[in-house]
Amino acid sequence: MGRVCHDAAAAVQNRGGGISAGHQPTPSRLCLPACSTNDSFKPQHPSLTFPEENSRTRGWKALGALLGLGAALAYHGRRCRAAQESPRVYTREEVRSHNNLETGVWVTLGSEVFDVTKFVDLHPGGSSKLMLAAGGPIEPFWALYAFHNQPHIRELLAEYKIGELNPEDNVSPTLEASDPYANDPSRHPALRINSQRPFNAEPPPELLTENYITPNPIFFTRNHLPVPDVDPETYRLHIVGAPGGQSLSLSLDDLYKFPKHEVTATLQCAGNRRAEMNQVKVVKGLEWRTGAISTARWAGARLCDVLAQAGHRPRETEAHVCFEGLDSDPTGTAYGASIPLARALDPEAEVLLAYEMNGQPLPRDHGYPVRVVVPGVVGARQVKWLGRVSVESEESHSHWQRRDYKGFSPSVDWDTVDFDQAPSIQELPVQSAITEPQDGATVESGEVTIKGYAWSGGGRAVIRVDVSIDGGLTWQEAQLEGEEQCPRKAWAWRIWHLTVQVPAEQKELDVVCKAVDDSYNVQPDSVAPIWNLRGVLSNAWHRVRVHVVP
Amino acid sequence: MGRVCHDAAAAVQNRGGGISAGHQPTPSRLCLPACSTNDSFKPQHPSLTFPEENSRTRGWKALGALLGLGAALAYHGRRCRAAQESPRVYTREEVRSHNNLETGVWVTLGSEVFDVTKFVDLHPGGSSKLMLAAGGPIEPFWALYAFHNQPHIRELLAEYKIGELNPEDNVSPTLEASDPYANDPSRHPALRINSQRPFNAEPPPELLTENYITPNPIFFTRNHLPVPDVDPETYRLHIVGAPGGQSLSLSLDDLYKFPKHEVTATLQCAGNRRAEMNQVKVVKGLEWRTGAISTARWAGARLCDVLAQAGHRPRETEAHVCFEGLDSDPTGTAYGASIPLARALDPEAEVLLAYEMNGQPLPRDHGYPVRVVVPGVVGARQVKWLGRVSVESEESHSHWQRRDYKGFSPSVDWDTVDFDQAPSIQELPVQSAITEPQDGATVESGEVTIKGYAWSGGGRAVIRVDVSIDGGLTWQEAQLEGEEQCPRKAWAWRIWHLTVQVPAEQKELDVVCKAVDDSYNVQPDSVAPIWNLRGVLSNAWHRVRVHVVP
Repeated sequence: MGRVCHDAAAAVQNRGGGISAGHQPTPSRLCLPACSTNDSFKPQHPSLTFPEENSRTRGWKALGALLGLGAALAYHGRRCRAAQESPRVYTREEVRSHNNLETGVWVTLGSEVFDVTKFVDLHPGGSSKLMLAAGGPIEPFWALYAFHNQPHIRELLAEYKIGELNPEDNVSPTLEASDPYANDPSRHPALRINSQRPFNAEPPPELLTENYITPNPIFFTRNHLPVPDVDPETYRLHIVGAPGGQSLSLSLDDLYKFPKHEVTATLQCAGNRRAEMNQVKVVKGLEWRTGAISTARWAGARLCDVLAQAGHRPRETEAHVCFEGLDSDPTGTAYGASIPLARALDPEAEVLLAYEMNGQPLPRDHGYPVRVVVPGVVGARQVKWLGRVSVESEESHSHWQRRDYKGFSPSVDWDTVDFDQAPSIQELPVQSAITEPQDGATVESGEVTIKGYAWSGGGRAVIRVDVSIDGGLTWQEAQLEGEEQCPRKAWAWRIWHLTVQVPAEQKELDVVCKAVDDSYNVQPDSVAPIWNLRGVLSNAWHRVRVHVVP
Repeated sequence: MGRVCHDAAAAVQNRGGGISAGHQPTPSRLCLPACSTNDSFKPQHPSLTFPEENSRTRGWKALGALLGLGAALAYHGRRCRAAQESPRVYTREEVRSHNNLETGVWVTLGSEVFDVTKFVDLHPGGSSKLMLAAGGPIEPFWALYAFHNQPHIRELLAEYKIGELNPEDNVSPTLEASDPYANDPSRHPALRINSQRPFNAEPPPELLTENYITPNPIFFTRNHLPVPDVDPETYRLHIVGAPGGQSLSLSLDDLYKFPKHEVTATLQCAGNRRAEMNQVKVVKGLEWRTGAISTARWAGARLCDVLAQAGHRPRETEAHVCFEGLDSDPTGTAYGASIPLARALDPEAEVLLAYEMNGQPLPRDHGYPVRVVVPGVVGARQVKWLGRVSVESEESHSHWQRRDYKGFSPSVDWDTVDFDQAPSIQELPVQSAITEPQDGATVESGEVTIKGYAWSGGGRAVIRVDVSIDGGLTWQEAQLEGEEQCPRKAWAWRIWHLTVQVPAEQKELDVVCKAVDDSYNVQPDSVAPIWNLRGVLSNAWHRVRVHVVP
């Protein structure tokens, strides 16, 4: 058991960061060896970093760690009991069934099983965040919130150990060769899955606005087809040359030779907040809530540089840059989309052939090895697993360009719709949503903090977010967080918050938010007048109802 | 009297255009000499043309002329009475008092006075248009609608002659030297005046959307100060040079030497539709209805060309182009405003130093001899009577840039407002309004045509207008008229119309319109949540209530 204690101390020194770095062992830590779970802890994402985190976020994390320490000390007396009994063995299925307060809340760390039911309400980051991990492994969440990787927190967890996982349960399930999705990557368990095949999932609201930059593992995922498995060695990106120019076949190394350009940009699916439209009248489409939007720091070659090398120049006549993905349906039809050539060639539009996302190679779900990033434009045009780029006199003939991702009047139904009559969605309208508190939540009277995001398309900056707690009768201005980007190039969202005073006699809050962008466009008041048969462009005021207890 | 007949025939041949061109005199026209008013008709704006009128507008005008002829024939039996009696003499004041159906509707043409009360309901262009001229001279309206300048229409008018104007009444009123507005130009009587000093006026709705291009005399006028009287010979435009560049002092001839660039662009005042905001809660500002918006074909030098000649180049750091007008208040402070340098230098933004408006020199009310035209941007930045242009690291320090023309939350009042906290309005949000029928009007059941305009800032094209006749419960798509401009450069409005079927049992229509632009931004449902203390940016759904008779 002494070995474990030694390893734990070494781990603290090696990791360095966090408030425990360099601490001398204190008397209370001497009992660590008896119950440490440290030897089984192997973070799955040790290198996950937050390159753009702002000081406020860092402050919050430090606070969380401090509160974690406080909780550890408060529970000092309960330490070192569970692990001294002979360990019981549980199956993963048994653990999974303990994912709520009624059955009990279990989590795993390595091969160890913990019943943390009584800790849920004491979790410094909030009970809702701990509940995201209920019934499964804690590692992916500790990877997101790296401050958990400290001895006092592991020590605290050890209190709740109830046994071990069945070793036979660690065998990977056999792949079904006939399933085109069998080779899809594994995903973060915090994602709320809207569709498994193809994989479509969004981060829960309480994680979505935790950081200005969305961590890669919980960035919303919108796949139309199975995820292709691309070999970086043989990968080639085909750029069809202009008449008189030359076509290019670029390896990744070739692409890296173009000047590397970085952009912090928010991506949003046209179907974000479709669930609200569905409540007015049923629409066709995935049931996205408020999470089909995320923000990353993208890096890659500028599309204008690559197109110029292939001989493309601005044209007087209508022209479009067509993108084809390496993902394809059983007939071999690839995902495709296009953007106007004028945008593609405008250096100020900062369209990228991106190969990095938050300082790391693109994750497979986000287009490894190369995707298009078109700041300020709907996600559907930002083709992943990019295989081919060409310049055409017409928009892409892809289904997704011509028969989807278009807006219509509320009067248009599936019998009358004429997709040729509406322009393809490119820039998106101004948007905002509340992420905390959530609809149906209960808050205490007194100070209540409301939090959310706001964004607009086309590089238009969000200049104001108005928040109401009386359904829109009176308004207060929220505080905008994060960086202010350059005019005309405000590609990323603003996180916002507002602390309001709620009197004890108040029974309920009807919380509403609406954003204004720098063209002074605003969100419409209600959903029904913007309802459309595909449920896209759902950007009415966001509303949540919250119960108040004195 | 034979001379008059001869002159009238010559006039027809000389003018050429219109449906009467080349017609041989018919027997019914032989009695013309006895009552023609032709020798006294001198159009005030003989050269006013509609360079951009579309085929639909032309068709309507031809129809109007035909109907006019029909009415003339119908009233054949009443001809040639009034002028045979000895003429009575009226003062202008007497004529002015006859401006409604109760006192009678009188108009003048040259020195002749006509009582057209009984013709009001027969006017082929609609009674409301004739009423615009009630109590005053008809010439300005005939100049707008040039098809009136035909013998059969003058013949028809002669029917209603009741006398002559008192010759002493034609003396111009003495100028009051102490009045800084004494030298303001004369204006078209159809304009609805919101403020006489400074002069602010809008065209009435029924004229506003009559043409895609607004005729100069009824283009909305927004003056902040008296109209300067600029001598074109001595006029110089001062362009402050860049460090290392050279300052320019440009005469009009110098300006004409730059490549001439033409743009069809809509201008809108930030206060358009303020009247609706005032109904929610009183705001400070002129009571604009739906007419503080108009469209012209502008021509001039591109600002980017002129700035380049003065040595200005794009900058990495924040920079603004500041404009100063030659209009000034008693302390000598000139009107001023600024736009970001990036927009000014972008050839695609088509910012003009304009010296022509619809093929004519700028009228004095619209900035003679040179004004700035910034397509897609609020009117307040498009400085008239331009005197000076400079590039600065900050926005213009003008009152109108820093302490006006900004948007605020509905919660901000004059005690709490902080003008530094809001960005100056540049691009405007999506807008639309109904011009026909008007609020409170009565229409007949059956086919009812609804008409209006729609526009958006920043070159974003209007892609759809939804119209409701049940207050917004159900919607129909309107037909967009006029030209479709290039993507990202849709600077001009779209006129739209929709013909709906109104059942006989319907008592009232609650007509609503809302537009969508190509970034899929929409108008907000209601006024109160966008209310702001200055009453700017009033772009909620437009609503009119209409009575229906079976």
